[in-house]
Amino acid sequence: MENSVKNYLEEHKDRFLSELVELLKIPSISADSKYKDDVARAADFVHQKLLDAGVDHAEVCPTKGHPIVYGEKMVDPSAPTILVYGHYDVQPPDPLELWHSPPFEPVIKDEKIYARGACDDKGQVYMHLKAFEILNNTSGLPCNVKFMIEGEEEVGSENLETFVKENSEKLSNDVILISDTSIVSNEIPSITIGLRGISYMEVELTGPNRDLHSGVYGGAVANPVNALCELISSLKDEKGKITIPGFYDRVLEYSEQDRNDLNARPFDLQEYKDDLDIAEVQGEQGFSTIERVGIRPTLDVNGIWGGYAGEGAKTVLPSKASAKISMRLVPNQDSQEITDLFRKHIEAIAPPTMKVKVTEHHGGEPTVTPTTSAAYAAASAAFEEVWGKRPIPTMEGGSIPIVALFKEVLKSDTVLMGFGLDSDAIHSPNEHYGLFNYFIGIETIASFHQKLANSVS
Amino acid sequence: MENSVKNYLEEHKDRFLSELVELLKIPSISADSKYKDDVARAADFVHQKLLDAGVDHAEVCPTKGHPIVYGEKMVDPSAPTILVYGHYDVQPPDPLELWHSPPFEPVIKDEKIYARGACDDKGQVYMHLKAFEILNNTSGLPCNVKFMIEGEEEVGSENLETFVKENSEKLSNDVILISDTSIVSNEIPSITIGLRGISYMEVELTGPNRDLHSGVYGGAVANPVNALCELISSLKDEKGKITIPGFYDRVLEYSEQDRNDLNARPFDLQEYKDDLDIAEVQGEQGFSTIERVGIRPTLDVNGIWGGYAGEGAKTVLPSKASAKISMRLVPNQDSQEITDLFRKHIEAIAPPTMKVKVTEHHGGEPTVTPTTSAAYAAASAAFEEVWGKRPIPTMEGGSIPIVALFKEVLKSDTVLMGFGLDSDAIHSPNEHYGLFNYFIGIETIASFHQKLANSVS
Repeated sequence: MENSVKNYLEEHKDRFLSELVELLKIPSISADSKYKDDVARAADFVHQKLLDAGVDHAEVCPTKGHPIVYGEKMVDPSAPTILVYGHYDVQPPDPLELWHSPPFEPVIKDEKIYARGACDDKGQVYMHLKAFEILNNTSGLPCNVKFMIEGEEEVGSENLETFVKENSEKLSNDVILISDTSIVSNEIPSITIGLRGISYMEVELTGPNRDLHSGVYGGAVANPVNALCELISSLKDEKGKITIPGFYDRVLEYSEQDRNDLNARPFDLQEYKDDLDIAEVQGEQGFSTIERVGIRPTLDVNGIWGGYAGEGAKTVLPSKASAKISMRLVPNQDSQEITDLFRKHIEAIAPPTMKVKVTEHHGGEPTVTPTTSAAYAAASAAFEEVWGKRPIPTMEGGSIPIVALFKEVLKSDTVLMGFGLDSDAIHSPNEHYGLFNYFIGIETIASFHQKLANSVS
Repeated sequence: MENSVKNYLEEHKDRFLSELVELLKIPSISADSKYKDDVARAADFVHQKLLDAGVDHAEVCPTKGHPIVYGEKMVDPSAPTILVYGHYDVQPPDPLELWHSPPFEPVIKDEKIYARGACDDKGQVYMHLKAFEILNNTSGLPCNVKFMIEGEEEVGSENLETFVKENSEKLSNDVILISDTSIVSNEIPSITIGLRGISYMEVELTGPNRDLHSGVYGGAVANPVNALCELISSLKDEKGKITIPGFYDRVLEYSEQDRNDLNARPFDLQEYKDDLDIAEVQGEQGFSTIERVGIRPTLDVNGIWGGYAGEGAKTVLPSKASAKISMRLVPNQDSQEITDLFRKHIEAIAPPTMKVKVTEHHGGEPTVTPTTSAAYAAASAAFEEVWGKRPIPTMEGGSIPIVALFKEVLKSDTVLMGFGLDSDAIHSPNEHYGLFNYFIGIETIASFHQKLANSVS
């Protein structure tokens, strides 16, 4: 790695951090319309920082929802073009009472920065702006760079597809680079090659037309909460298999060899259980924990509510009960097909005593990125140079639906060069991101630009 | 019925109503500590109105929780003594958005008064103060009267037992009179002779020590909401029977004759379903709707919560899930025994992946009051005089735990002389009480005092 990069990073570390802190102070919660203006503020912030970093051109592109920030600098038509994708929106911070410090008042403690979005994805996306700045102000950019930073990733990237299709020319590239995933550990660098898809649904059951006195009616009138519990528990069998007809029809079955390779990844089950403080793991029979999150689909209730949840006791037989239910999908499942199967099944098994409403929140396709591309080789070489270790390929359970869309529309592959840790508590209270990861990430990304340029020159 | 009573009632109708409105304006929600002062205000209001009505002595008796209001007027040692029991506390009003007018801003519409507590129990308890006032200011009280109006009925009357035991002398009586139940309809007066008991519990499951990203962990870590749904749905079998071992051991099985008598009560199933806007009723197989609420125990989830219930989508695997679950009990079940069986069963079936916490909210015993007593005869005669019809005996699904305690400690029987309707939406949004019921209730209660005095003289 050129010293100029290292030196520049050393010189500007404090500013690189304080700029991230500013971004983290903006509550850009895309799921909650109350925060629409804050989401817009975050977009403007990213736009300004792209200009400060030295892009030739940057713009805030309005969509039907939250805006997309675009920026680019073209240095040499013969050099490869990198499209950096990331998102500046964040998950809702609740439950608030479990945060040790307010989610939008970043705190640096034990070499970590605590805030909603610290890792997912503000911290990781901002590394790219800073790597760009370093190269631009030192040795010069070895590759053309385009940035597309959206504000709807946490709500299903609803408007990104249209944007990408309408701007496929402008977005043309040789490789898409995304930092929105994790490494195995700070000792074991890794590159994510697989992501699960998702189908996120909501189910509402309505029984009686009003809340009832559970004494006067209890036993004679079906209770929507009891009914919803029955319905949900029927969605998995005792082997942990999902019971929706057709759910597994397209699931890619991996070879013995692939499964062995996957399970060869360093993994300590006891550490895993200790970190979560659970006595047992649980999942689909016949698969390891790594396989259960990496190559197998699943179904989870993300939220449930109905009746009285306040202090004390209320003897009510509720009129309604609802649940948010999401399914994680694997190759070659199709999110729309799974969404339809889910809806059909729920409507089929809903009891005659209830009215049922099934709502679709969002969907995204599963992906596997190749390990044979020049881009993957460059990423691997960058890790090896900066970390002194070859990264191992891993499958992750999360979803970045956009990756499949990129492949389909832009015809280019993605490199998932993430620097987070599973323990960073993304989507949870006290989300954080290691300063070590933030700074080494910047360095590794800068190295990737150089390796990629060399690999094709 | 003496005309003096009718005349006094006619003269003071407006004031009798405006006084009730004042009481209904006080948000005396006993379940929520935020309203502690309002509960106290309601107690003071009742205390003052007892004095205004002409009792010799009244006091607000502090307890560990909300106060109990006591008042009495002894007119003749040889006359029977009536102990009037009721409660001035109310259920929480939520869901607020479903009220057509604010729950604590009483509105009179279509000859009904709409407010939380209008029927349960402020409206019904206040009839006794007014009946007392009428007799006291006209023909004179024919019986000695004691009032015990508490503020914790909606949260299980936790401190009443101690109070009753410590004051059994003071509370000694010949009959306990309670108006906190319903009549079949305004055309079919009835007296409640059976009430179900209750065991109200809360179950909390804790899986991982923090909310997790449902992509990163989903499929490998047990989800507390899914687990709670399985647990709850396992509590009833396909016949609608509760699966808790020993739950039915003491349940009183009624004779063919008793069941026929019970089912002889006028009841229109289609009307019942139309009123609730449900396609089907549901309950324990082999029993009618009247039996399911009258003589059979049941289990209902009164509230459930866990994970994200906000707008949009949050891909979280929650750390915790909770439910409030209550069981209605029938003779000869014992609430403490059922509570223990429930706890034992839940702890036994909770999965090894979860920590389980079972909390006891409150319990109360089922009761059946005799139809052979002089008091029942007086109540029956009072209805016949004022309504021109003999009331029919009915079993109600609700619980007034205190009735069993009175029998045990004060050795006296209770007459459940309620004037509400099942359609009054108690414990629901838009609770209301008919003005017809309020005024005829006052008249019927006054008549009861006279019939009872005559029956023993």
